[in-house]
Amino acid sequence: MIDATHDPARRSLVASANGHPDFAIQNLPLGVFSPEGGAPRGGVAIGDRILDLPAALGLGLLDGPARAAAEAAAGEALNPYFALPAATRGALRARLSDLLREDGPERARIEAAGEGLLHRAGACRMHLPARIGDYTDFYAGLHHAVAVGRLFRPDAPLLPNYKHVPIGYHGRASSVVVSGEPVYRPHGQRRPGDQPAPDFGPCRNLDYELELGIWIGPGNARGEPVAIAEAGSRIAGFCLLNDWSARDIQAWEYQPLGPFLAKSFCTTVSPWVVTAEALAPFRIPQAPRPEGDPRPLPYLADEADAAAGALDIDLDVLLLTPGMREPERLARSNARHLYWTAAQLVAHHASNGCPLNPGDLLGTGTISGPDQDGCGSLLELNRGGREPVRLASGETRRFLEDGDTVILRATCRRDGFAPIGFGEARGVVTAGRAIG
Amino acid sequence: MIDATHDPARRSLVASANGHPDFAIQNLPLGVFSPEGGAPRGGVAIGDRILDLPAALGLGLLDGPARAAAEAAAGEALNPYFALPAATRGALRARLSDLLREDGPERARIEAAGEGLLHRAGACRMHLPARIGDYTDFYAGLHHAVAVGRLFRPDAPLLPNYKHVPIGYHGRASSVVVSGEPVYRPHGQRRPGDQPAPDFGPCRNLDYELELGIWIGPGNARGEPVAIAEAGSRIAGFCLLNDWSARDIQAWEYQPLGPFLAKSFCTTVSPWVVTAEALAPFRIPQAPRPEGDPRPLPYLADEADAAAGALDIDLDVLLLTPGMREPERLARSNARHLYWTAAQLVAHHASNGCPLNPGDLLGTGTISGPDQDGCGSLLELNRGGREPVRLASGETRRFLEDGDTVILRATCRRDGFAPIGFGEARGVVTAGRAIG
Repeated sequence: MIDATHDPARRSLVASANGHPDFAIQNLPLGVFSPEGGAPRGGVAIGDRILDLPAALGLGLLDGPARAAAEAAAGEALNPYFALPAATRGALRARLSDLLREDGPERARIEAAGEGLLHRAGACRMHLPARIGDYTDFYAGLHHAVAVGRLFRPDAPLLPNYKHVPIGYHGRASSVVVSGEPVYRPHGQRRPGDQPAPDFGPCRNLDYELELGIWIGPGNARGEPVAIAEAGSRIAGFCLLNDWSARDIQAWEYQPLGPFLAKSFCTTVSPWVVTAEALAPFRIPQAPRPEGDPRPLPYLADEADAAAGALDIDLDVLLLTPGMREPERLARSNARHLYWTAAQLVAHHASNGCPLNPGDLLGTGTISGPDQDGCGSLLELNRGGREPVRLASGETRRFLEDGDTVILRATCRRDGFAPIGFGEARGVVTAGRAIG
Repeated sequence: MIDATHDPARRSLVASANGHPDFAIQNLPLGVFSPEGGAPRGGVAIGDRILDLPAALGLGLLDGPARAAAEAAAGEALNPYFALPAATRGALRARLSDLLREDGPERARIEAAGEGLLHRAGACRMHLPARIGDYTDFYAGLHHAVAVGRLFRPDAPLLPNYKHVPIGYHGRASSVVVSGEPVYRPHGQRRPGDQPAPDFGPCRNLDYELELGIWIGPGNARGEPVAIAEAGSRIAGFCLLNDWSARDIQAWEYQPLGPFLAKSFCTTVSPWVVTAEALAPFRIPQAPRPEGDPRPLPYLADEADAAAGALDIDLDVLLLTPGMREPERLARSNARHLYWTAAQLVAHHASNGCPLNPGDLLGTGTISGPDQDGCGSLLELNRGGREPVRLASGETRRFLEDGDTVILRATCRRDGFAPIGFGEARGVVTAGRAIG
């Protein structure tokens, strides 16, 4: 639903929010942060500031459902907030949008509260926004699936199930970290093609994967599937997700049960939960399925979802090597290239009665565009490791080297609306520790 | 370490413990239970009773490390207890073994405390013993891997990686349930061989899998692998685990990323954590690797583990159909048939720096014996669905039907020691709810 919170003319009393590439007043994403010397707590990004939810509650700036939502979001994890109905969560967003307006009703009190209410974001530390009960990674990026499949099966890149069943696998919740945490290069078993037996050592083919993360809101009980028409209501928000991948370990370990240690060393998410409500103006129709593609089975088919269940979000991958001054963009893609909508992923996940819980995290799978400049992973950019990528700095990269920083960014733009962004998911590759 | 707690001559003041098939005084497994009308709390199984840990603390029966361990185990989840060093956990076991002796030092006080301290187990409800952060399922049962592989690849049943790398995949923590919870038949996509396109409906090929569960004790930080010589110390205990499997859904969905919804509808564990300490007498040498098998890579090789890292635990699968009076045993196997030790699974899991946390759960994979009477799944017993199993009741089963109850049991026996058992992991198959 598009309402006054999306009005592009609305300006914030936080001056840096006006024209901010990510955190204009039309966004208001939630996260968990610690101010200098303080304990973790819930907050809302606005320009270069973070609104302190416990402080806002203490000042009595919130009441009714907005207060209930702020109380649920004020602690060291947003899980209780995610569990609330969308209307309650939306009430907090609407109230904050009013409070933070240039001409808001409590401007004097907010300004008097100063940095205890509106912390400088640069002086705060961000945390994971939730205790992640379970993390699932999908494979819904069609162009990625085709490109990777083509490396192994040039004539039949997609397996027969791909366009029928949203492919996914259970990931590792314990190794999901917030943007900025180091990415330790994993050790593992690998057996390059020319080697008769495997050996064990630091990953040689370390890669990133450009994904969106989906934060689950209200959950479902075990044995109670979620209808596709309801599935959207189970999504509280979105983030960026880098599904770091050890390609050499993956190639050796993944048959027959799928990726395991090639993924579970680290998954980086951006700290801010961009709410489903903030993204309302950027919903678009699902791309028409190409001629000959099967229709989704009824449990995945919903007219409203097909009409507005996809998202128009520009996605960027940037690389910053120790030899660069500024990051170089390696790829630009867009969330519209997902073959399945977020609601379809949720409905599929719960279709067997699997319980999804508030604060669970879904990854979409790597979102590559149709062209080579939209590659969401190095494996695609370097064509299976055969063509190292030439960088503007004069360097080349087959895969990531220690010291390399990968930055994911996301921005939503639409005529007649203020742009909003996701902030970033950033990680620097760091030498990993061997056993013993 | 074998000590006085394992003395077969030690008898308990709880008369039903003496000669009990599972819970003699030599076992003393921990779990979480609710007495009638009471809140969940930690307890210890002894014969047909459950020792109430908060009550024991309240009576002042414990002090020093035993008290610290009991306090950590007294709440509604054992995670804090799992986090303790083995010596602290062992101190609780040693003290309880003393207290519950027939000639224990506090016999009069214990008897005076009555059922507030020693609840009748039959009147209590069991819960999951821990909040499971992550659940991982391995594939370490060699005979199962060969038997299942043979169904698909008669000439080369094992993939080239099997004997080098412990194969595993991330499972779904949210659908792990305690023994006794119903198993809802999942709906899902499947495409039988003769059908051009998939459809969606209730699973037709519902199966069980006989596994052991491994409860992780003290964890490791992200980026800090665990040496194989240390890995055993990260295991707090064991349970039975039924990795219910929807074979028709699995066959259609599992390429290329592994099993997903075919597993995540339900996993049943037995409620009692049989401690590593209680199992000390039942440790045996790892079976010698057959001629021609590769040696484990150094990060998986440890002399002490090879000498005593395997477990001699008899494992039974029983089926109780609505047409039977008593359950019929479908299989007997033994944990010695695992190709990798529990310590090897832990060391491998952490070798990439993946953080394991107290209360995480590992499944071993299906433990089948070398012969047809040791099949740990129906898929093996019915030879890929081709030969329905004939039951003594005159019924046949290809796969499980609604109303069928599957019961897993485990018992350790060794000359000169009292037998100990795991209790059971039981689940009854129940019609599942369709979407919408």
